[in-house]
Amino acid sequence: MPFVEEAFDGVPVLVTGGYGFIGSNLVRRLVRLGAKVTVVDALVPNTGANRFNLADLEEHIAVHVVNMIDEDAMRELVRGRTLVFNLAGHVSHVYSMCDPYADLMMNCHAQLGLLEACRKHAPGAKIVFTATRQQYGRPEYLPVDERHPLRPIDINGIHKVAAEAYYLLYGRLYGIHVTSLRLTNTYGPGQLMGNGRHAFVPWLIRLAIDDQQLQIFGDGQQMRDFTYVDDVVEALLAAAYRPESDGEVFNLGGERPYSIREFVDILLGVVGGGSYTCVPFPEDRGRIDIGSYYADFSKIKSVLDWQPAVPLAEGLRRTVEYYRRYRNHYW
Amino acid sequence: MPFVEEAFDGVPVLVTGGYGFIGSNLVRRLVRLGAKVTVVDALVPNTGANRFNLADLEEHIAVHVVNMIDEDAMRELVRGRTLVFNLAGHVSHVYSMCDPYADLMMNCHAQLGLLEACRKHAPGAKIVFTATRQQYGRPEYLPVDERHPLRPIDINGIHKVAAEAYYLLYGRLYGIHVTSLRLTNTYGPGQLMGNGRHAFVPWLIRLAIDDQQLQIFGDGQQMRDFTYVDDVVEALLAAAYRPESDGEVFNLGGERPYSIREFVDILLGVVGGGSYTCVPFPEDRGRIDIGSYYADFSKIKSVLDWQPAVPLAEGLRRTVEYYRRYRNHYW
Repeated sequence: MPFVEEAFDGVPVLVTGGYGFIGSNLVRRLVRLGAKVTVVDALVPNTGANRFNLADLEEHIAVHVVNMIDEDAMRELVRGRTLVFNLAGHVSHVYSMCDPYADLMMNCHAQLGLLEACRKHAPGAKIVFTATRQQYGRPEYLPVDERHPLRPIDINGIHKVAAEAYYLLYGRLYGIHVTSLRLTNTYGPGQLMGNGRHAFVPWLIRLAIDDQQLQIFGDGQQMRDFTYVDDVVEALLAAAYRPESDGEVFNLGGERPYSIREFVDILLGVVGGGSYTCVPFPEDRGRIDIGSYYADFSKIKSVLDWQPAVPLAEGLRRTVEYYRRYRNHYW
Repeated sequence: MPFVEEAFDGVPVLVTGGYGFIGSNLVRRLVRLGAKVTVVDALVPNTGANRFNLADLEEHIAVHVVNMIDEDAMRELVRGRTLVFNLAGHVSHVYSMCDPYADLMMNCHAQLGLLEACRKHAPGAKIVFTATRQQYGRPEYLPVDERHPLRPIDINGIHKVAAEAYYLLYGRLYGIHVTSLRLTNTYGPGQLMGNGRHAFVPWLIRLAIDDQQLQIFGDGQQMRDFTYVDDVVEALLAAAYRPESDGEVFNLGGERPYSIREFVDILLGVVGGGSYTCVPFPEDRGRIDIGSYYADFSKIKSVLDWQPAVPLAEGLRRTVEYYRRYRNHYW
């Protein structure tokens, strides 16, 4: 077991981006573990924030609609917390190219804001940051371990590299307890299913549920790994609980890599039908595509005893079931 | 010869940070080569900008006091330029830790501003960006070549890594001609000699000229390389002239590495006396010190035929002579 469940009982926890996909799944789990959860979310339209994600929990948590660049608000919000999960951030690689300033504000400026607030007002807190595989850019070798060079090929990746470096720097210089998890494709209930300019996995899931033809960019032979959101939540809690994670960076991964075609075949099997076609990459997507990627997650396995527990077919089954039930809150 | 001097005659050139140390030396050279020089400088107090640096040239150049985050101003300023030297930026590693937001604005936001302006209004221009050895962090091996991992250990270094990545990205995606030069310790006339929280080289030169005892942090055995500013200007012009430099990153370096003690011995020899003492690193400095560093500059030597031409003793002789004459403009 990567952590002791009782350890979170009564703990004052701050979750930034708590209305988002991963944030809301984490909040749900933390509430169940008895943590005193405060959610900070700017509820920026067209990001992952979705009020419905926590609608049934609002009486069990404290909610603050605040942008993390607001230093005054953040000062008060971090005070007294012993644990901060920082899941706020822009996640669209395509949008980051259209509006690099917005990405800079959220993924750099706001991160500095949180760190400065913690340094000054909650220096003993543990902060868990979520980074991304996109920081590696096009893999030079597979699977990609944490020593792989960071050569991001889009603005979002550049800013995530900078942000993660802030966390490690503040950890080293100021003794703040920080851990960064580099996520790969995360999927599950609560995700932004909005349109094709965000992550491709929810978009394909949406098309499959709607019985529309799925479009695969390229030949579909690119390899990817997939983590079900519950497994990501486990990793976040493990990183929070274990002091061995301080100052460290860990890849997450999936139980094995799949080609995009394999992924689509499994998805269509879960949905119970449908079809797909391969089309050339649209220009804005193709030029920031990273080719095949999958992670070596042996470090987190050996240090924190974490490994993905939910196989892809099972995770997709739960995911499809969820969106069929709550479709109108996500489409 | 790394470039043809006539090639700059009549060329419309924009120099950002033109009142600064390297910028003003470049502007002086460009004016001599017949270029039509426009200077953009925000003249931010306590950075390297110094009106005296170009006081004798103001009738030969166009000057705009503008902050590069001003998109409207930049749009007009880049229009019609075929060459942009981007030397604007915060350079203090120590200050970047005190005010990370200011560093972010100047070294990231403003750089995006320039790139967006060029992408939209001067897509054919060549842009030469000046990066820094600080991007490498503590060297894993010496001499440091361009493949060395980028693991900066201060905010300024993190932001310079991000900014350089912007340039390379815009080059790859949008076909803008970009080159990044990673500078090491540059010294010479026109530098900010203000205080010990900026670069250590001008500070030691200032103390030596004032016949005050020099303080060396640590034991003085750390190795460093030094580039005289005229050599940096040659490299900037070579990068601008040669299409082989497009999309490339180059280290600059010095004729050989020196220990800090050797450097000080040569400096005191040039000045004609004085003394030094070794003291422990102040805390804010020690924790972001990178130990020994010197660059492998064989790449720029082979691709652009550049190498440092001014030996350290000669460069220091010219430098000391300059500041003795114009002391009141720099102290």
